[in-house]
Amino acid sequence: MSEANRTGTELLHTPGGVRDIYGLECLRKLTLEKKAHEVMTSYGFHDIATPTFEFFDIFSRERGTVQSKEMFKFFDRGNNTLVLRPDMTPSIARCVAKYFKEETMPIRLCYTGQTFVNTDKYQGKLQEVTQVGAELFNDDTSDADAEMIALVVDCLLKCGLKEFQIEVGHAGIFKGLVEEAGFDEEAAEELRRLIVAKNFFGVEEFLEELTVAEPLKEIFVKLPELLDDLSENSAYVRERTTSNEVLEALDRLEKVEEILDIYGFSEYITIDLSMLSGYSYYTGVIFRAYTYGNGEALATGGRYDKLVKQFGVDMSAIGLVLVADQMMLALSRQNLFEDTRLGGTILLYPPENRDKAIRFAEEHRKNGKVVRLLRKSSKKSLEEYKAYAERMGAEMLLYYEKGDEPEVCQLPELRR
Amino acid sequence: MSEANRTGTELLHTPGGVRDIYGLECLRKLTLEKKAHEVMTSYGFHDIATPTFEFFDIFSRERGTVQSKEMFKFFDRGNNTLVLRPDMTPSIARCVAKYFKEETMPIRLCYTGQTFVNTDKYQGKLQEVTQVGAELFNDDTSDADAEMIALVVDCLLKCGLKEFQIEVGHAGIFKGLVEEAGFDEEAAEELRRLIVAKNFFGVEEFLEELTVAEPLKEIFVKLPELLDDLSENSAYVRERTTSNEVLEALDRLEKVEEILDIYGFSEYITIDLSMLSGYSYYTGVIFRAYTYGNGEALATGGRYDKLVKQFGVDMSAIGLVLVADQMMLALSRQNLFEDTRLGGTILLYPPENRDKAIRFAEEHRKNGKVVRLLRKSSKKSLEEYKAYAERMGAEMLLYYEKGDEPEVCQLPELRR
Repeated sequence: MSEANRTGTELLHTPGGVRDIYGLECLRKLTLEKKAHEVMTSYGFHDIATPTFEFFDIFSRERGTVQSKEMFKFFDRGNNTLVLRPDMTPSIARCVAKYFKEETMPIRLCYTGQTFVNTDKYQGKLQEVTQVGAELFNDDTSDADAEMIALVVDCLLKCGLKEFQIEVGHAGIFKGLVEEAGFDEEAAEELRRLIVAKNFFGVEEFLEELTVAEPLKEIFVKLPELLDDLSENSAYVRERTTSNEVLEALDRLEKVEEILDIYGFSEYITIDLSMLSGYSYYTGVIFRAYTYGNGEALATGGRYDKLVKQFGVDMSAIGLVLVADQMMLALSRQNLFEDTRLGGTILLYPPENRDKAIRFAEEHRKNGKVVRLLRKSSKKSLEEYKAYAERMGAEMLLYYEKGDEPEVCQLPELRR
Repeated sequence: MSEANRTGTELLHTPGGVRDIYGLECLRKLTLEKKAHEVMTSYGFHDIATPTFEFFDIFSRERGTVQSKEMFKFFDRGNNTLVLRPDMTPSIARCVAKYFKEETMPIRLCYTGQTFVNTDKYQGKLQEVTQVGAELFNDDTSDADAEMIALVVDCLLKCGLKEFQIEVGHAGIFKGLVEEAGFDEEAAEELRRLIVAKNFFGVEEFLEELTVAEPLKEIFVKLPELLDDLSENSAYVRERTTSNEVLEALDRLEKVEEILDIYGFSEYITIDLSMLSGYSYYTGVIFRAYTYGNGEALATGGRYDKLVKQFGVDMSAIGLVLVADQMMLALSRQNLFEDTRLGGTILLYPPENRDKAIRFAEEHRKNGKVVRLLRKSSKKSLEEYKAYAERMGAEMLLYYEKGDEPEVCQLPELRR
């Protein structure tokens, strides 16, 4: 639409897939981001901030992040292709390779940032989301795996969620089985698609057409059912495979489960041997947090021991990301927000009491109170100001009647 | 450069004009943003978050923000032009017109966000900066003007700056004088350029060539000198103009100065009658905060009573923005950071003490402490771990020797 054709109303729109947040919703979102970030820093993660856009190469196909067509691209003045970061992990991997290349012991980094995925707007997905994430480099222990999963649980709990499950899998299981079966890339991809869709019948049908050893076939068919009871499922797989990669993945998952039990978080964990990720950079443990009523994951993560090497330094790595927008949806749908208004005090003063009002505000702000100054207009009644204070979600309206101290008018709580 | 030609090293670059921040610098920047934001919320501003990119029209020429060629532009799937927001004010103006169009009393909004200006990289300017800002709508009083300027002072002080000046001017002075003199747009623009450059001689020469009443000519020539003593300078101008706009601007500045005196912030204020802004949307009081050693402003702001009307609702407005990156530069150059390390405790445990270590970490994190868990490798010595803890900026290294409680190793402070 040409500029001349736009009217005032049309100027009010945001592009499809992105939105404004304000009022109580915005306060809640920032509080949530702050809480998650506080948990991460309490585990010893240090903040890092990378640019909102980077050279396209950082996110190119070999990195294994989102597809090129799903990125927002543009050019700099030197005609290089830039992209709005679709994923923070490759950026942080670039940074450790650049700034910590000599470090051989663990590096813990965390961030809060916007990421952008250029989906078709008819999918109804948000194109810009806030991610709060953490990445742990140079620690390839099962302790690190368990701690990152425990960190997700801790963050979700501190942010107010009560019922959720972290599905935990291992990228090595599918990879090892496919190798053992000798599938080519195309066949592996088709099988992956069927397993992700939990299409048991499809998997069976697909395997009929290929020459696969019977025990392996049994695993593939059974895979989507191999949930929850790890020792039983692990035994099922161990009896039917000789792949070292698969056996090591099972050992690892058993160890991680044992450590998560020490954290006391077993009730939030489901081990899922069929779990697969859209990001192909994962090499070890992978996980996703879900809650009822939300189709999309609240958090995702996993081990990606080969990614940093692409930036020139060989480092093990495991990361997690909480999607603030999905957590907001879940908290709202599950009616878990406890606040009912924005709060604060409005201090109404006639011009002749300006000095007193400014002093009062100063004093109370010093003590951590929120004081909003408002010069009284002679054209407006106290009732109008009360109604306004309620609209603004204030807790209290103070006003000067006589004497040095303002009168108090307590405001009713809003319904949740 | 084609992807195949990129080596590991070349993959480490960020585009010109944007950068990574990590370690102590990142902690300090986030602390600064948090402090500024806390001051704003204590004045009763409520958070708002708008998308990182918007339709180009929101920032088009008539809005009076940065020039089109200085914006990062790209297309959405519907071929609309999108821009990375170069300035938050037009976005917030759009929001109030959309979400608060019925509100006739003051609306206070604040934000922290990234803004993007596509400058030539040889200018050495940052293309992405973090802005922490506040906007006050529907309050056209001098109280509002003074409060916004006081808020800038308060934010800068709380963020640790000690010596700075807020230059305060009024967009109506230059505008009123130019109208009274009957200059066309071109002449006005040339004069604006000369005054901004504080080119006294150029102003005089320029005025020689035009027919201007002598008293007005005197004001224009004197303008860049009309600093500091407002009553004296105001008297000088009042004697030489009959423009209502100019006289009202002077009245306003006098009132604002009087109120800022109540705040106790007079020492930080310089009234500058020649002050002009690059953003043409300003209509009233304008201000900019400077400190020694920084060429660029730490904060800017002003009244823009006509902008929201462009989005369909007639509302007065005044805003301010703190540029976090400039404040960081100032604090660093003036050696005002007091922290010397990232802090926190590293808890080193052999696998057999895993349970105890996890309990210990849990307990201490609950009490607000930072505990970083680290499984001891049999290949590394305690000395190596101490050196590592120092590199990571930790305060303390704890390790299990014998008994249930870890031993304490206090680490030296780093030099500033």
